[in-house]
Amino acid sequence: MSNTPLWTAIARALRADIAEGRYAPGDKLPTEAQLAERHGVNRHTVRHALSALVEEGLVRTRRGAGAFVAARPTDYPIGKRVRFTENLRRAGRMPGRDVLSTEIRVATPEEAAVLDIAPGARIFVSHGRSLADGQPLAMSESYYPLDRLPGLPEALAEGRGVTHALKAAGVRDYTRASTRVSAVLATATKAVVLQVREGAPLLKTTSLNVDLGGVPVEFGRTWFAGDRITLTLED
Amino acid sequence: MSNTPLWTAIARALRADIAEGRYAPGDKLPTEAQLAERHGVNRHTVRHALSALVEEGLVRTRRGAGAFVAARPTDYPIGKRVRFTENLRRAGRMPGRDVLSTEIRVATPEEAAVLDIAPGARIFVSHGRSLADGQPLAMSESYYPLDRLPGLPEALAEGRGVTHALKAAGVRDYTRASTRVSAVLATATKAVVLQVREGAPLLKTTSLNVDLGGVPVEFGRTWFAGDRITLTLED
Repeated sequence: MSNTPLWTAIARALRADIAEGRYAPGDKLPTEAQLAERHGVNRHTVRHALSALVEEGLVRTRRGAGAFVAARPTDYPIGKRVRFTENLRRAGRMPGRDVLSTEIRVATPEEAAVLDIAPGARIFVSHGRSLADGQPLAMSESYYPLDRLPGLPEALAEGRGVTHALKAAGVRDYTRASTRVSAVLATATKAVVLQVREGAPLLKTTSLNVDLGGVPVEFGRTWFAGDRITLTLED
Repeated sequence: MSNTPLWTAIARALRADIAEGRYAPGDKLPTEAQLAERHGVNRHTVRHALSALVEEGLVRTRRGAGAFVAARPTDYPIGKRVRFTENLRRAGRMPGRDVLSTEIRVATPEEAAVLDIAPGARIFVSHGRSLADGQPLAMSESYYPLDRLPGLPEALAEGRGVTHALKAAGVRDYTRASTRVSAVLATATKAVVLQVREGAPLLKTTSLNVDLGGVPVEFGRTWFAGDRITLTLED
């Protein structure tokens, strides 16, 4: 259309450059002056185009440093079956996991209630970090009812994933009974682990996984880097 | 138990005071000095108890202003049927809605694709704010395929809710086809509308509602105040 504003053409050209990988996530875009010259427009027009791309989440600006291609967030399905490794592979990402620490201890009354175990029963707690293509994606705390899952700590230590370890501990299959999602800001500690800045937005989920009989096998809290993930729910 | 640390008793007393409504959401708690005197402990013990309640999300501290009872977040189910009014009523909250602005215009190519309408077809866009007990809960943009929903703007203007208006426009029932959730920081504009501070954490959802035949009837973007809502998914 002849009355399409000029800035939309610049935005479209930049969108195509990003889609075709000419600028990859994290790359700095040319300066406003360079873009203005290249497209034969004024800087106001360039700024309008960049604003539109920022609004779309394709581009991020850093004060004084210019405009950068935003990292494409990973789509992460939250449905009846939530499997980290499968989810990442399906999104075209290489999954990774670091175990930060583990402990075996007596459950608090709240933990016992959530996991439906006797007060005073033991739990296995694993603190970890999930990665996508080597970049930190999430920090998590997983709580397992230890007496219900003999051999679980050893099976998890093999590093073949949660599904594999649960199977080794006698859980043939498991499903997600509930997920709760909220938005919080990164604390100093989480910022270091997730490699985001303090105060960055995080998606916090708390979730319960149960076996085929509905018995809890894992309760978890996860903090996802907000700009690296989109939780998706499809029917 | 005799070896329970002293701070847990203080935390338990404060938790009970909050649960019983002696301190309501938003109320300022007594100062550290007052709590120390009341319980016959030192301020270090009081501070430990308050830290635990902050960690649990029950209490918030504001630098220089003291400790306040945190607003209890509203549980907001995101399932196959997402109904704002029903969701709020079920959470024991009084639902409210402000329409900030509306427009009728030609769909962009992206909007036409999402709503499965012809390029150039008209859409009705409603910008609004949702309230829980009079407090802003969310800001939203709703996009409706106008030609598919004759009379919708007038029906929405009656203020009897989206479900009612869609019914008046011929949609007997509708379900949520997909929801995408991310975490973002409040911009200056959103901070004003939501009455949060700039940079506060927001839950952003993008969602598609379809009629019983799977035809899109509404596409929406919503920004929820992160500390006032928990999205819940149950199986």
